[in-house]
Amino acid sequence: MLLLKARLGRELPAINKALQEAVDALHPSVQPVAQHILDAGGKRLRPLLVILLARLLGHDAPDIYPLAASMEMLHAATLLHDDVLDNADSRRGREAAHVRFGVPVTILAGDALLASANACVARYDDPALCRCFSQATSRTAAGEILEIASQRHVDVSAETYADIIRGKTAWLIRASCEMGALRAGGNVMQVAAAAEYGENLGMAFQLVDDALDFADSGETGKPTAGDVREGKLTPPLRLYRQWLNEEERATFDTAFVCGLLTEDDARRIAAEVRAQGFDRAAREEAVAYLDKALMALDRLPEGKELDVLRQMAEYVRDRKK
Amino acid sequence: MLLLKARLGRELPAINKALQEAVDALHPSVQPVAQHILDAGGKRLRPLLVILLARLLGHDAPDIYPLAASMEMLHAATLLHDDVLDNADSRRGREAAHVRFGVPVTILAGDALLASANACVARYDDPALCRCFSQATSRTAAGEILEIASQRHVDVSAETYADIIRGKTAWLIRASCEMGALRAGGNVMQVAAAAEYGENLGMAFQLVDDALDFADSGETGKPTAGDVREGKLTPPLRLYRQWLNEEERATFDTAFVCGLLTEDDARRIAAEVRAQGFDRAAREEAVAYLDKALMALDRLPEGKELDVLRQMAEYVRDRKK
Repeated sequence: MLLLKARLGRELPAINKALQEAVDALHPSVQPVAQHILDAGGKRLRPLLVILLARLLGHDAPDIYPLAASMEMLHAATLLHDDVLDNADSRRGREAAHVRFGVPVTILAGDALLASANACVARYDDPALCRCFSQATSRTAAGEILEIASQRHVDVSAETYADIIRGKTAWLIRASCEMGALRAGGNVMQVAAAAEYGENLGMAFQLVDDALDFADSGETGKPTAGDVREGKLTPPLRLYRQWLNEEERATFDTAFVCGLLTEDDARRIAAEVRAQGFDRAAREEAVAYLDKALMALDRLPEGKELDVLRQMAEYVRDRKK
Repeated sequence: MLLLKARLGRELPAINKALQEAVDALHPSVQPVAQHILDAGGKRLRPLLVILLARLLGHDAPDIYPLAASMEMLHAATLLHDDVLDNADSRRGREAAHVRFGVPVTILAGDALLASANACVARYDDPALCRCFSQATSRTAAGEILEIASQRHVDVSAETYADIIRGKTAWLIRASCEMGALRAGGNVMQVAAAAEYGENLGMAFQLVDDALDFADSGETGKPTAGDVREGKLTPPLRLYRQWLNEEERATFDTAFVCGLLTEDDARRIAAEVRAQGFDRAAREEAVAYLDKALMALDRLPEGKELDVLRQMAEYVRDRKK
């Protein structure tokens, strides 16, 4: 993981500078909200992916940083709206923006971040970048919508779940890779390989997130099994439900559908998920996606960024929080 | 107004068909919300402007309709978020979307409409269209933000108010005209004239709206002086406040700032605004903007659409609801 950490450390100042410039250009009344979500300790993986793909394909200009920052802004915009939709109290261990600043200004800050990111991408004067960005916003919104429509349903199939996470998480990571490759003037094959790497990395990222949701809260700093209480039938929970006997399952279904599961229930379910290894099963599914991501990398030219991209897959696989 | 009505009647089926196709492509769980806001009797002025400018500048292809529809979708997206932000009960005499469908799905439907409109514009493969669209979303968001930041403030200057309405209303109308001209391949002067026409038309449109807010509710079908109760210091209300004596103004200011004005207060203020002609003053300001709009039209080529665009200015001036 040394290469990844070193590279992130080297790129971080320029990424954060571009982000800060974008935030400073927002209206003063939404700046604190944007600052709050961007300061909340995001890993800046999406901007880093834009940069890595662009550099790998030979684009050396510093003009990549605003483009990279625009993907983090789009990500931040979706987080702001998500927290309002989920009525979440906290995000990354801090008070959620809408709790601190109120719902209206949080919705507006999300709209402003999205608009600003969109305007930033449009300034590159490249229709392919605009298409990629607008597709990412459409797909992400569609994923969120499907997730909300599936909430508290016990019959969400593995296929539907894959559609949800492809939309809500993977597409934005895919678009980050694709936009880096597009900016570098990569050929059709290279852009497709970058997109495939990103989409599979994103699927794996979310599956590991789903597994981590069942970890002990002492290790992750997040409340355990928040997904259970929010009515999200993620893969570990789907496996857990299948493992219950008929009577237990009927009881679980009623409580899940009606949103009656308590914090104690969630902790008890999480302990069972860990005991039965259902969280590890989600991690194994993630590894299958990571294998596809690594295979896509083989279609890209050799270069030091390729090694960093390979380490990124390891990082996603081994993530503990 | 005959030309305008006839042309709108002729274009409406194709506009509504393009809108319906876009709505049908949304996720089923947000479709009813999108349908609700689009069925609420919007006048389709923005799509009509896209079409008129494109046709005037010689673009005859039917590919203009999805572009035209995308501006109505962006408009609908802003209305959905606005109603949540303003906590409005009704819109155009119907129940507001968030009241009927709930806040989360209404926010998501707004996000989905915006994303879909953005993707539609991106398909034209023209960076100038993407820039224009993304600028419209930025400016509109900035206008909304400034309006919310100015709410319940008694010291909103005429300049700040012009900034608010330029953002929240005029820019989208400007962008509609600009995008029609861009799609037609208009030259720089023509695109600038189209934008200037649209911006001034939009300023006038909002000023007339501000005047109409003080009309008798029997005539408009809207509650009288909603802006007063929402803490919006529009031009008629600013004039009313200036006209009060010192003691009356202190009383008004306290009630306005604290949001204590009742429906009775609002009706009483509206009657005084009408008696003193402060609503007519806003209409006169609108006429000054319309004069600028008409002058901009003189820089565009003659054609039957030019007459329709002139009638559009009359329509905005004479609007009674």
